[in-house]
Amino acid sequence: MAKTIVSEEDLIQQYLAPLAAGYPGAFGLKDDCAVLQPPAGHDLVLTTDAVVAGVHFFADETPENIAWRALAVNISDLAAKGASPHAYMMALSFPDAPATDWMMRFSSSLKEAQEHFRLNLIGGDTDRRASVPLSITITAIGTVPEGKMVRRSTSRVGDRLFVSGTLGDAALGLVLRRNADAKRFPGLSNEDRAFLLERYLRPSPRVELSAVLMEYANAAMDLSDGLAKDLGRMCKASEKGAIIEIDALPLSSAAARIAEATPEVRTMALSGGDDYEVLCSVPAAKAEAFVEAVLDVGVDMTDIGEIVAQGGLSIKDASGGDVVLPKSGYDHF
Amino acid sequence: MAKTIVSEEDLIQQYLAPLAAGYPGAFGLKDDCAVLQPPAGHDLVLTTDAVVAGVHFFADETPENIAWRALAVNISDLAAKGASPHAYMMALSFPDAPATDWMMRFSSSLKEAQEHFRLNLIGGDTDRRASVPLSITITAIGTVPEGKMVRRSTSRVGDRLFVSGTLGDAALGLVLRRNADAKRFPGLSNEDRAFLLERYLRPSPRVELSAVLMEYANAAMDLSDGLAKDLGRMCKASEKGAIIEIDALPLSSAAARIAEATPEVRTMALSGGDDYEVLCSVPAAKAEAFVEAVLDVGVDMTDIGEIVAQGGLSIKDASGGDVVLPKSGYDHF
Repeated sequence: MAKTIVSEEDLIQQYLAPLAAGYPGAFGLKDDCAVLQPPAGHDLVLTTDAVVAGVHFFADETPENIAWRALAVNISDLAAKGASPHAYMMALSFPDAPATDWMMRFSSSLKEAQEHFRLNLIGGDTDRRASVPLSITITAIGTVPEGKMVRRSTSRVGDRLFVSGTLGDAALGLVLRRNADAKRFPGLSNEDRAFLLERYLRPSPRVELSAVLMEYANAAMDLSDGLAKDLGRMCKASEKGAIIEIDALPLSSAAARIAEATPEVRTMALSGGDDYEVLCSVPAAKAEAFVEAVLDVGVDMTDIGEIVAQGGLSIKDASGGDVVLPKSGYDHF
Repeated sequence: MAKTIVSEEDLIQQYLAPLAAGYPGAFGLKDDCAVLQPPAGHDLVLTTDAVVAGVHFFADETPENIAWRALAVNISDLAAKGASPHAYMMALSFPDAPATDWMMRFSSSLKEAQEHFRLNLIGGDTDRRASVPLSITITAIGTVPEGKMVRRSTSRVGDRLFVSGTLGDAALGLVLRRNADAKRFPGLSNEDRAFLLERYLRPSPRVELSAVLMEYANAAMDLSDGLAKDLGRMCKASEKGAIIEIDALPLSSAAARIAEATPEVRTMALSGGDDYEVLCSVPAAKAEAFVEAVLDVGVDMTDIGEIVAQGGLSIKDASGGDVVLPKSGYDHF
């Protein structure tokens, strides 16, 4: 039988405290609370997201991918608000005593993610609860210059709508993850398969965009539940409408190749979840400068439409007709 | 069948957004993140605690008591650190669509707790996960004047050890909650029973102590897993030892009456969890002034022993002999 960790103190001191070593206010996870000294002239930006086995990731997922996802989905929220990651709190709940090997891989992956996103664990809570699936709830804290958080509700009429990267890859990756026997999408190359799986399994939040968003965007949010649903939320919060063109939605070469044989896959760019790309609205007059600025940080942004006065989201096809979606995004609730 | 809430938006906007109404940076829970403007000259103090049905509260507990506990256990951590509650994030996970009546009672109780402890909900996450018990993970954020957080690891040799209120009541309340048929502790009055149950079901974190702790205590922490275990943690973190007298431990009249018939109940003051009282170590020279200051804020503090140089916790009985505990506190892990 695999060696397991039965003491909470071992779990914290051997596997989690090293993740807090870079942050004096974490006190090596030996206190009840962490202390955070807010950088002068900055606001703090806070978000909470939980990921649970069987809901947000497959129960047999690797510890590396689980750890990465748990942190990345939170960082994605911060990045879309123009915030720089600063620290996070983590509540971990295990169904059984975790195996030492599993925990070592989980904490190594968290360390890698921390270093990539530049933040530290500063505190948390650990529990073991029989017959409850593994659950990881992270509260991430970022910083922005005072008053500069990019909101969801501040789009203006005439703004151009942009999305980063490509859409729908993660939804295709999820289909592939579910059907490991490769019956779906026959003829898909191994490279395309690996790319799409990676897009689902290892979300890449757009931290490199945060400064540019802060400078140019009127409004922004990350895409976690599918463009149609999330853009609908931005419109509602901003009390505006939006018109987008389905043919403008950026597809990866892998997704485009699948769409050739299976045209309905195109709608995954609208309704597929887990993209963790950024949606933002930028004043039309600044759109050109914005696109240049994002190229400087190495991100492709695509103009997909505009903000209009009347409420609701309208999706147009090449001939100007309305696209009707079978299902509007994924709702975890 | 009871009316249920099936839309996440309804859940958030009707039941949770009112809890965030007092905090501009919560944006009515309509954004992905909250923004927090740290008060000048203050540090932030952060803690995370999850409560789960069947583990931290009974699955059939009232929504009022569940909500109160979820927030109170977090506030207790802040209070023991000298921090004033400021805001909290909440991740809620339901096994099924919650009933409107349940959710109304839950959110009303949270509102009451918020007003009592003086903080607002500022953000969170909601999920529904079939066959997973109700779980509430709160990250609470408090403020302290810069550099003033009271730590766990800073006890000094010669410090007097104090605890607030009375110990062991919640553990007795838990026994009563488990045995509603009243076979345990026969002869217990209804008043005593109600008092002990209340001590278990509605923890009263000592927020009124925070300023006094900040002024007088070398070290402090809240008592959640039993005095013996928690004091052991303080000793370990401080690299000191402690000697306490079991007869000095403060019992409520209800607990004292039970202890007359059932003397082993005395050890519940040492090992019973869920007290949510404060343990602190105060320089001997300041002990008298400290006791006066806490009386001014209406809290009884009892001197239970002292911090010594050599490691470990030593518990003495009236004749100076060593008390051996059957079990050292409750470990949720």
